[in-house]
Amino acid sequence: MSDISIDRAALEAFTRQAFEAVGMSAEDAATEAEVLIWANLRGVDSHGVQRIPQYLDFIEKGWMNPRPDIRILKESAAVLYMEADRALGPIPTVRAMRAAIGKAREAGIGWALIRDVTHQGAMGYYSEMAAAEGMAGMAIVASPPNMAPFGAKAAGLHNSPIAFSFPTGRDRPITLDMATSVAAGGKLSVASDKRVPIPADWALAADGSPTTDPDVAAILLPAGGAKGSGLALVFQCLTSLMANSPLIAPVLRGGVREHRQNSVVAAVDIGFFIDVGEYRALLDETVDELKSLPKADGHEEILMPGEPENRTLDARARDGIPFPPGTVEKLRETARRLDLASPV
Amino acid sequence: MSDISIDRAALEAFTRQAFEAVGMSAEDAATEAEVLIWANLRGVDSHGVQRIPQYLDFIEKGWMNPRPDIRILKESAAVLYMEADRALGPIPTVRAMRAAIGKAREAGIGWALIRDVTHQGAMGYYSEMAAAEGMAGMAIVASPPNMAPFGAKAAGLHNSPIAFSFPTGRDRPITLDMATSVAAGGKLSVASDKRVPIPADWALAADGSPTTDPDVAAILLPAGGAKGSGLALVFQCLTSLMANSPLIAPVLRGGVREHRQNSVVAAVDIGFFIDVGEYRALLDETVDELKSLPKADGHEEILMPGEPENRTLDARARDGIPFPPGTVEKLRETARRLDLASPV
Repeated sequence: MSDISIDRAALEAFTRQAFEAVGMSAEDAATEAEVLIWANLRGVDSHGVQRIPQYLDFIEKGWMNPRPDIRILKESAAVLYMEADRALGPIPTVRAMRAAIGKAREAGIGWALIRDVTHQGAMGYYSEMAAAEGMAGMAIVASPPNMAPFGAKAAGLHNSPIAFSFPTGRDRPITLDMATSVAAGGKLSVASDKRVPIPADWALAADGSPTTDPDVAAILLPAGGAKGSGLALVFQCLTSLMANSPLIAPVLRGGVREHRQNSVVAAVDIGFFIDVGEYRALLDETVDELKSLPKADGHEEILMPGEPENRTLDARARDGIPFPPGTVEKLRETARRLDLASPV
Repeated sequence: MSDISIDRAALEAFTRQAFEAVGMSAEDAATEAEVLIWANLRGVDSHGVQRIPQYLDFIEKGWMNPRPDIRILKESAAVLYMEADRALGPIPTVRAMRAAIGKAREAGIGWALIRDVTHQGAMGYYSEMAAAEGMAGMAIVASPPNMAPFGAKAAGLHNSPIAFSFPTGRDRPITLDMATSVAAGGKLSVASDKRVPIPADWALAADGSPTTDPDVAAILLPAGGAKGSGLALVFQCLTSLMANSPLIAPVLRGGVREHRQNSVVAAVDIGFFIDVGEYRALLDETVDELKSLPKADGHEEILMPGEPENRTLDARARDGIPFPPGTVEKLRETARRLDLASPV
């Protein structure tokens, strides 16, 4: 069976209705839909609407809170500390990034620490919020262990992603959104669906032995060895430890692997330092020169961070978002369960 | 010939005298000596006193300014923008990090952008300044191209390093200080001195062809492919472009490779969010659990970021700093040139 294309508007309406049906406010459901479909439009399907059934389960189990009491615990001219009360990630994080952007406009930088959030979604969404305001954006999230620290053959760190965005003059922002593992978890699922082996440096089996079977792979390996591993620890230090919500030691000591995350989003106001138009021109020039360099073997062009995703966005905004039969069935099943019209 | 050990105090006195002899103030010369020897003590000899003759040359040529007019261009409750006037890196950077720490104490975060600095030295020195005050520290520096962007076979980005430090309870801070290339430039020099080949993924020859010869290696390769490459671009965006001092496009367009850098140092006040003692305990627990994980083949223990350097520090603080004959000769030659007593 081949993929089925779903129109963005239909998908968005359905996603909003689904989250409203389980108790979220119309505004929060719209935010959640926006962030999920943002990922699908860019081809980051692991962070898109196929998550809906899982999220509904989590809400039913009480792991995710559709009516969170999001509170500002502390605030300064430049910093915000937010308790998310197990909200679905986009709800507090969009709010925190808006606040960070506001603070950056006054103080030059805004830095927001969010504790006890669940499933942040694609981090590039938040860093691009800052770029849309002519600022540099950054977003980090940390979760319980799924990756082996450098030198270990068991999970001890999370392959925490980091995203940065910067506004260009001519084009969409430059957005680097990268996991600290060699391959993000989504790539293992793709390999599994395609029934192809994975490279030996991507993951270990659950017992710590090497594997190239994506269905056996259970522990991710860090990008660049000590570098990815070190960054993953740094991101725990900046988020979970700072928020007194540790996710590593309690799990390794045999506690439950909680569905919890902690996150930082930040904005740096480019206009504090330089005219933003001039900055955009400097970045355009940098991109032009990098793209004109001689290509390495096997590369037809030199791509900037976020460029592959933006090409997918162009195609999917035009042609709709293609979904594999499994996802289509999940969406139909969700529609039946919630007594909604299916988007497909 | 074997290495010769030099006592830390003798080396520090000599280094101060050398920089005072070429016009630096006693205070600035002491700062420069402190940062260089900090690197030697930790085994990061590429960023230590063997740089002295090169720096003296740069000062003579006017590329480095021993009497810089360091100015605050702009300031807010949380942000500092500093013009370094081609100062030797440690002089403005220590000052900027001190200011960032002061701002963090008031606003929760301090972020300092430094333009037109030369040779920052080991970035971990600056991030550890914040950790010594019970804060999280970060330091980035960007320079002209020496690394191939992912997909290219020519230099287009700099292997910009980033350093983070966090205070522990029991031990020295956790310090991750990493270049965005697979291997830092210093490792190529070590391979060259030892006359051993380098792995094929470390570097390219000047013409873009693969090489394992450290003496032919001319273009570094990014760690994790698109990841290291993306981070290197991000660091230019956060420093050089922000400071209107672009170092990529002007060089790729055929301009001179200037001896210039731009940098960001930042401090996040842990105490804004959590009791610092509690934070230290959480980090100690995290380290304990990570170090107890089952070891991967070929690893006798699981090392935290900065741990290898701290072991070298223990040994060198006790036994003196060993230098190869080439460095000893450079120091003696510098002493003769400046009419100073040699430290060795």
